[in-house]
Amino acid sequence: MNRAELIEQIKKKKSFLCVGLDTDPKRIPDHLKDKEDPVFEFNKSIIDHTKNLCVAYKPNIAFYESLGSSGWESLRKTLEYIPNNIFTIADAKRGDIGNTSKMYAKTFFQTYNFDSVTVAPYMGSDSVTPFLEFDNKWVILLALTSNKGGLDFQMIEDSQGTKLHEQVLQTSKNWGKPDNLMYVVGATRTEALSEIRKIIPEHFLLVPGVGAQGGSLEDVVKHGANKDIGLLVNSSRGIIYASNGEDFGEAAREKAQELQKKMSLYL
Amino acid sequence: MNRAELIEQIKKKKSFLCVGLDTDPKRIPDHLKDKEDPVFEFNKSIIDHTKNLCVAYKPNIAFYESLGSSGWESLRKTLEYIPNNIFTIADAKRGDIGNTSKMYAKTFFQTYNFDSVTVAPYMGSDSVTPFLEFDNKWVILLALTSNKGGLDFQMIEDSQGTKLHEQVLQTSKNWGKPDNLMYVVGATRTEALSEIRKIIPEHFLLVPGVGAQGGSLEDVVKHGANKDIGLLVNSSRGIIYASNGEDFGEAAREKAQELQKKMSLYL
Repeated sequence: MNRAELIEQIKKKKSFLCVGLDTDPKRIPDHLKDKEDPVFEFNKSIIDHTKNLCVAYKPNIAFYESLGSSGWESLRKTLEYIPNNIFTIADAKRGDIGNTSKMYAKTFFQTYNFDSVTVAPYMGSDSVTPFLEFDNKWVILLALTSNKGGLDFQMIEDSQGTKLHEQVLQTSKNWGKPDNLMYVVGATRTEALSEIRKIIPEHFLLVPGVGAQGGSLEDVVKHGANKDIGLLVNSSRGIIYASNGEDFGEAAREKAQELQKKMSLYL
Repeated sequence: MNRAELIEQIKKKKSFLCVGLDTDPKRIPDHLKDKEDPVFEFNKSIIDHTKNLCVAYKPNIAFYESLGSSGWESLRKTLEYIPNNIFTIADAKRGDIGNTSKMYAKTFFQTYNFDSVTVAPYMGSDSVTPFLEFDNKWVILLALTSNKGGLDFQMIEDSQGTKLHEQVLQTSKNWGKPDNLMYVVGATRTEALSEIRKIIPEHFLLVPGVGAQGGSLEDVVKHGANKDIGLLVNSSRGIIYASNGEDFGEAAREKAQELQKKMSLYL
């Protein structure tokens, strides 16, 4: 999916919601556990109930990988089930030397046909650029993450007072374009968002941390939105585990709708 | 495998060689391509020919992942085939928020029973510590990598003149112990090795970049060895693709033996 199509979907649905598919077999409702592929059945119902309210789905690859080859099969089926007009994000946090990053890019863009993949910046340019060589595919590079440990290194200042995540933005923004490069900025880091927007005014941001991690949608929009909105705000556990009963799909829909309604005020 | 056992293997085999299993179906010799699982058949032969010369195997997870669920099946069989007295490294460069890193740890330590996994430090403490909670399992944290892009961020100095990779070492060394934490330092970065050894005198280093990437074994030992050697030096392509004919196993054995002979001089 290209940038114009993504923006069109955001305007049409009055939503910049991304639903995180962190599907944990232990948290799947009991009535699905006897199915042949409970992970896929769970995702299928979440997708059926939320697809009109969100513009992106973000499977968290760790949850599928931990199940071995059957997990990758559930992931493949999930990807095929997601409608084509919804942006897909492999939340994989990959990144390695050039020939290896190329293999990871092949995995997510060809073997699984995701629109985008999250990438870690520590190994620098040649660990990221192989992901940028695919038409209409995106890199979503970690900048300032929502977790506690995000402060261990990402806020370190160099001798000029530039923080590491700002260096990552400044150095990497020319590796790609706002058409194929986004950044991860946690919703718990809104105090840094205005500075981040000075460095990358046009790029989309993927913003996790609203919901279970405590970030505020209002603050994210206030400090992070640009003329195209330029945000994909993710919620995972707050939506998909809203109920652990047979009504989990409807409960997920309600939680997604709450967020979508708030988002519609800004669109 | 614990630290004492690893050191014992190094002394016994007079080797600190790690063989990287970056198995690319496109580079597998033609006579294996009709087999049911060419990737596993290739690895099996490499293991048969090199297991007396090396102390570790390092499957590069990208190469298996890119094949979808069949690649994970080849990986599982490869892991089962590696003798128990050889240390295994999932070269995966993972790292995510706590609950997700826990899933990655489960993948590599339980679903696949690796001894260790490579982890990227950018997301800080809670992205790394979940991997350190398993008995006799290891984290191998990226410090200073061998690729060109390794210089983009890892050498940035803070206001005190401390480089980012040194900060990573200083901050992370207390997350684990030399018994469950190693670091990746590229063989192309020997000029930094002495400083690195001042910060972490006891930890093992996993050193890629000898061979195809141009690093020197002599310089690595000179600047990086400690009283237990404290090194695992990796070669991947230089060994496993030494020949693309039916003699690829013997050719791999020869290349591994060349390195092991040089290593034996230091043991």
